[in-house]
Amino acid sequence: MSRFWSGIVHDLEPYVPGEQPKVANLIKLNTNENPYGPSPKVLEAIRFATSDQLRLYPDPNAQALKQAIAEYHQLDEAQVFVGNGSDEVLAHIFHAFFQHEAPLLFPDITYSFYPVYCQLYQIEFQKIPLTAEFEINIDDYQQPNSGIIFPNPNAPTGRLLALAEIEKLLIKNTDSVVVIDEAYIDFGGQSAITLINQYPNLLVTQTLSKSRSLAGIRLGYALGNVELIAGLIRVKDSFNSYPIDTLAIHAGVASFEDQPYFEQTCNKVISSRELVVNELTDLGFDILPSAANFVFARHPQIDAKVLADGLRKQGVIVRHFSDERISQFLRISIGTAEENQQLLAVLDSLV
Amino acid sequence: MSRFWSGIVHDLEPYVPGEQPKVANLIKLNTNENPYGPSPKVLEAIRFATSDQLRLYPDPNAQALKQAIAEYHQLDEAQVFVGNGSDEVLAHIFHAFFQHEAPLLFPDITYSFYPVYCQLYQIEFQKIPLTAEFEINIDDYQQPNSGIIFPNPNAPTGRLLALAEIEKLLIKNTDSVVVIDEAYIDFGGQSAITLINQYPNLLVTQTLSKSRSLAGIRLGYALGNVELIAGLIRVKDSFNSYPIDTLAIHAGVASFEDQPYFEQTCNKVISSRELVVNELTDLGFDILPSAANFVFARHPQIDAKVLADGLRKQGVIVRHFSDERISQFLRISIGTAEENQQLLAVLDSLV
Repeated sequence: MSRFWSGIVHDLEPYVPGEQPKVANLIKLNTNENPYGPSPKVLEAIRFATSDQLRLYPDPNAQALKQAIAEYHQLDEAQVFVGNGSDEVLAHIFHAFFQHEAPLLFPDITYSFYPVYCQLYQIEFQKIPLTAEFEINIDDYQQPNSGIIFPNPNAPTGRLLALAEIEKLLIKNTDSVVVIDEAYIDFGGQSAITLINQYPNLLVTQTLSKSRSLAGIRLGYALGNVELIAGLIRVKDSFNSYPIDTLAIHAGVASFEDQPYFEQTCNKVISSRELVVNELTDLGFDILPSAANFVFARHPQIDAKVLADGLRKQGVIVRHFSDERISQFLRISIGTAEENQQLLAVLDSLV
Repeated sequence: MSRFWSGIVHDLEPYVPGEQPKVANLIKLNTNENPYGPSPKVLEAIRFATSDQLRLYPDPNAQALKQAIAEYHQLDEAQVFVGNGSDEVLAHIFHAFFQHEAPLLFPDITYSFYPVYCQLYQIEFQKIPLTAEFEINIDDYQQPNSGIIFPNPNAPTGRLLALAEIEKLLIKNTDSVVVIDEAYIDFGGQSAITLINQYPNLLVTQTLSKSRSLAGIRLGYALGNVELIAGLIRVKDSFNSYPIDTLAIHAGVASFEDQPYFEQTCNKVISSRELVVNELTDLGFDILPSAANFVFARHPQIDAKVLADGLRKQGVIVRHFSDERISQFLRISIGTAEENQQLLAVLDSLV
């Protein structure tokens, strides 16, 4: 507390990201990073850009990156907004679109940064409970709102909402912005990007941190109607002229240019996930259907916190959330084959 | 305009950064970049960090970087806040400290991003005119305020305020945060960092974009009392967990470790500035005393816009501002010896 702080600072309850341990040799299955490194072409592009030219500011519009993203998703460059990680993109979205009379709607179990953004920008919100099976029921979102946001697949459940359901929601909800946060879409879901040209109030966000193995570089983006993107650009240009550095621009462009590597690593993660699901089932776990690069699993007999602590003692870190409805679940990122085997071996010794 | 935008988005007048031209072979003296590249040790550190490990999130606290900065400035790590460029740091400062009853005070001629942040965060402000000689008179700041901010040396004038004057201001103004924005301090000014342990309401911001030749990497920081830094961290952790990417952390640490290179390039820029000042004087220009890596100059006979356009036609870009009080000035960044000679040769043909 400080008399120098603005009023809102006192009330903030900041987001707490998953641990980035400083100890070596841990098997890190707690923050949904890709077990495989970025494309070798991305590393090459970064090395190429590592020169005296770093003395110059980057392109404030990161145009080369926007072009690469637009081309990849078959959209226009003016339908692309880029940011320093999708968290920054989401922050600007909350600021740019959700300050209206009615509350913002999002699921009770979802990305826990959403209520934090609401505090930061003084946005009212209402949590809509997931069904007993932890699914989003779009009928529950038919009420006055300043916007609707959820991840698809949802986090930390991993459950996917069918594209047809998202379209139903868009047909019924035309007066506020609907944001589909697709951080995990490349691991088996169908993207809502195909609906953008039909629905002017749809924004889709994606990140290069998961399926493109670039969490260390910080790149995320939003796709949508030109008018929505223009609103985001106004906020960005009133906050930071150059959020995307020169190396990130080069890395991002190279990533979108190496489609085979991207597909190959995504497919490896998906196959590993199916394997992990089968083996966890054999160990007695209940697992929610996952379309992400993690699974959300509970054991009917053993307390989740006890399991998480037991894993940690043996060098495997997973994520445990204390929220009541999900306190018996573990969120386990999919690792390499060796990491997954290690995880399963330790769990076998604990259950 | 869009019905989907939050109210504030309609009223924003975003900041317009200096041009980053896409044409090659221009002599770029318009955005105060360093004419020399970053330390070779910085480039080496970036190459070292360009590995598969980029699949992992960076340290959300960028601790290694904070330690390097703290050590360099002989402060505690808890007195350091880092951001994705000093513009991001400034944005968080405006949000965290200036939302109070009284207006924020800053000079009429100063960094033109300040009023933009005020719009973004709905902060009232009052511009305090510089003296006729374009100096800050601290007596003009003795009035109720939610904070005081100015660059030192000021931009775009380049004029330095003596440290003793800043201390006088701090003695008289104890109830709100005073921010000294030292983007250009390493080119001849005396930093206010030495006052931090005495004045709990003092924040000093610096950047790696100018004196450390890393505009392309985006790193800035604030130094101050632990309580102020804690407020900034609360805002940052409610906005973006990982604003500083892995490569930037490595680059920043390496920069602070190479003191000889830093001193050498700063000294070269300072000597070049003195030379440019002398030669511009010979060409009939009036030049404000500069402690920055640019000069602010006007020619008594020739219109500044005409000069800027003439320079541009011959491949030299400088910055011209249309604000009435300074519309007859050019802001000219100090380049390499060759670039400066080219600038002077073109000006010689124009005046």
